[in-house]
Amino acid sequence: MSQQTPLDYTAAGVDYSKIDPLKLLAQRAAAGTAANLAAHDVGEIAASRGESAYVMDVGGLLIACITECLGTKALVADAVRALSGRTHYDTIAQDTIAMAVNDLITVGATPLSIHAYWSAGGSEWFADAQRMNDLVRGWQTACDACKVSWGGGETPALAGVVEAGRIDLAASCVGIVKERSRLPLGDTLKAGDAIVFLASSGIHANGVSLARKLSERLPDGYATRISDGRMYGEALLDPTVLYVPVTEALYAAGITPHYCANITGHGWRKVMRHPAELTYRIHTLPDAPPVLSFIQEHAGIDDREAYGSLNMGAGFAIFVAAEQADEVVRISHSLGIKAWNAGVVEAGPKRVLIEPLKLEYGADDLHLRA
Amino acid sequence: MSQQTPLDYTAAGVDYSKIDPLKLLAQRAAAGTAANLAAHDVGEIAASRGESAYVMDVGGLLIACITECLGTKALVADAVRALSGRTHYDTIAQDTIAMAVNDLITVGATPLSIHAYWSAGGSEWFADAQRMNDLVRGWQTACDACKVSWGGGETPALAGVVEAGRIDLAASCVGIVKERSRLPLGDTLKAGDAIVFLASSGIHANGVSLARKLSERLPDGYATRISDGRMYGEALLDPTVLYVPVTEALYAAGITPHYCANITGHGWRKVMRHPAELTYRIHTLPDAPPVLSFIQEHAGIDDREAYGSLNMGAGFAIFVAAEQADEVVRISHSLGIKAWNAGVVEAGPKRVLIEPLKLEYGADDLHLRA
Repeated sequence: MSQQTPLDYTAAGVDYSKIDPLKLLAQRAAAGTAANLAAHDVGEIAASRGESAYVMDVGGLLIACITECLGTKALVADAVRALSGRTHYDTIAQDTIAMAVNDLITVGATPLSIHAYWSAGGSEWFADAQRMNDLVRGWQTACDACKVSWGGGETPALAGVVEAGRIDLAASCVGIVKERSRLPLGDTLKAGDAIVFLASSGIHANGVSLARKLSERLPDGYATRISDGRMYGEALLDPTVLYVPVTEALYAAGITPHYCANITGHGWRKVMRHPAELTYRIHTLPDAPPVLSFIQEHAGIDDREAYGSLNMGAGFAIFVAAEQADEVVRISHSLGIKAWNAGVVEAGPKRVLIEPLKLEYGADDLHLRA
Repeated sequence: MSQQTPLDYTAAGVDYSKIDPLKLLAQRAAAGTAANLAAHDVGEIAASRGESAYVMDVGGLLIACITECLGTKALVADAVRALSGRTHYDTIAQDTIAMAVNDLITVGATPLSIHAYWSAGGSEWFADAQRMNDLVRGWQTACDACKVSWGGGETPALAGVVEAGRIDLAASCVGIVKERSRLPLGDTLKAGDAIVFLASSGIHANGVSLARKLSERLPDGYATRISDGRMYGEALLDPTVLYVPVTEALYAAGITPHYCANITGHGWRKVMRHPAELTYRIHTLPDAPPVLSFIQEHAGIDDREAYGSLNMGAGFAIFVAAEQADEVVRISHSLGIKAWNAGVVEAGPKRVLIEPLKLEYGADDLHLRA
């Protein structure tokens, strides 16, 4: 297989250096609007700005909300349909919902409702009955799995904005933090805590631009077989794990995480998402899903790039008191999600150390806040 | 000016006959997920399904949420920028927020937070500093005008999904219904109530596909002058009125609307949005903004089509006890928004009668619920 140069995100068409200035500008402007809530006797949880979901205190009730998009994974489904005969929009629906709920639960919230945003390149997108049924059925199934109500949505046909034959999928989620002690912001995270990784199912929906770019380099494209004998394209479409049942089961068992990080863009650099100055030492590696190992190998990227941009088997990180880590692993296993007591939080400079790979990411490798 | 055939929505590329089956399928599937809320001791306000925003009862607190998109109005801004030298993304931002908040307030809610969804056709969209600044500034200004907190957002670069150089803009809004009596669902609307229209500023963000199609027929396109001497393209870009200050001022004055309808797609047919069997008799026409009269004339559409698909000067309808109608008009005027005590609700078959135009829309002309 020919490999001119290693693939990376910029080569794959996503140039964060162009997006980040907007993000910072928007984050600063957004922070300036917080004062508007005083007119309603509502306060914001200021520490939630810069976190994965926004939290407001409405008369003592903590309301969390988030809007997240699928990204470009639907393009993979569109391409693989010709090979597999399946639309894969049932799993694409789960991916989209996972993007929202897996973020929402990081602030200690229980998701309650989902709104769908399905923005198509033209009315005819909705005329494909099989794909339409798969999308609706998959969306409903994912809502049921997370015990959320599908409250509504928007299904515009935006020819000229969205590409013909394509769809821009996103989800908004509203939830509540049922007990204030679950809010994992501030100083509950501390040295000595354990880091439990919950298994990913594959690429989830981050790194997909890279994966798509790679398919163009492969002689058989998405039909290429990976190490477990499956088709590359189908393996890419394994749906994102919904982690809501795990956090809900933890609460039911009386376990309150000190922090949670959804491992999405920026890969394991997200392990140091919390604003505190702490060191995160990973001593145990989860199994990397075959499709991610395949991507790393064939895109020609090193461990530093792979673990810094893909989940590499760890889809979600839960930080808990050390003595609760094994119980978190057991609860996750009981729900069919593999988990590992994978590391420890230590006093020290902000960094992620991946000991088995001798990798280190420093604070300068992750910029998420204005 | 040549006019081959009258323009209509289908000719303009939006074929609701293709979208509506999906909407019905999705609405039925969504309704099936309501039972999931029981696990959280949360109930839904079932009557809010099919309304413009979804409402949940969380321990007595009514939480409303909505996701809405701008549609294709940004394409007008992109085209007019070359003529006017302005990006117009400050007003496009207001339009997007208006789509969400003007829907949210129809269920009696006070908007609290907004999430931005800005999905671009590539990273380079965000590198245009003037447009980026206008978008951020306009978004912040509209949030301030509605006294909402801009809680966060998503700014993906989705080459291959969103057209190169374009952006898909949407907003999610979360609010609360501060007093249960404000929930205008059920049987508060009744014969004898008055219908107060609040003025629109122009096309708002509905009917834009038609307006864009029309520009292709005009010899000078968006640069064509309309009756008030302004450029057609610039007049189209007048930002959607934010009606939040009006409903908030009504509550402050002790006036509780019996129902509200945001006049968007389907034009004045939306006046009969409430599920009840009632007749809506309009006796007074608001002034149609020049840009809408221009569209009607040059697209060659009759009054039935114009009032059935465009707002024709009435951007929002408030249904109140007859004796409060003049006070609603006065309050709206005091906020700089023209208003008319324009009609009455009567016992009778579900229909909208526009007396000055001898027009009637029946129940069969509006299908919004599964």
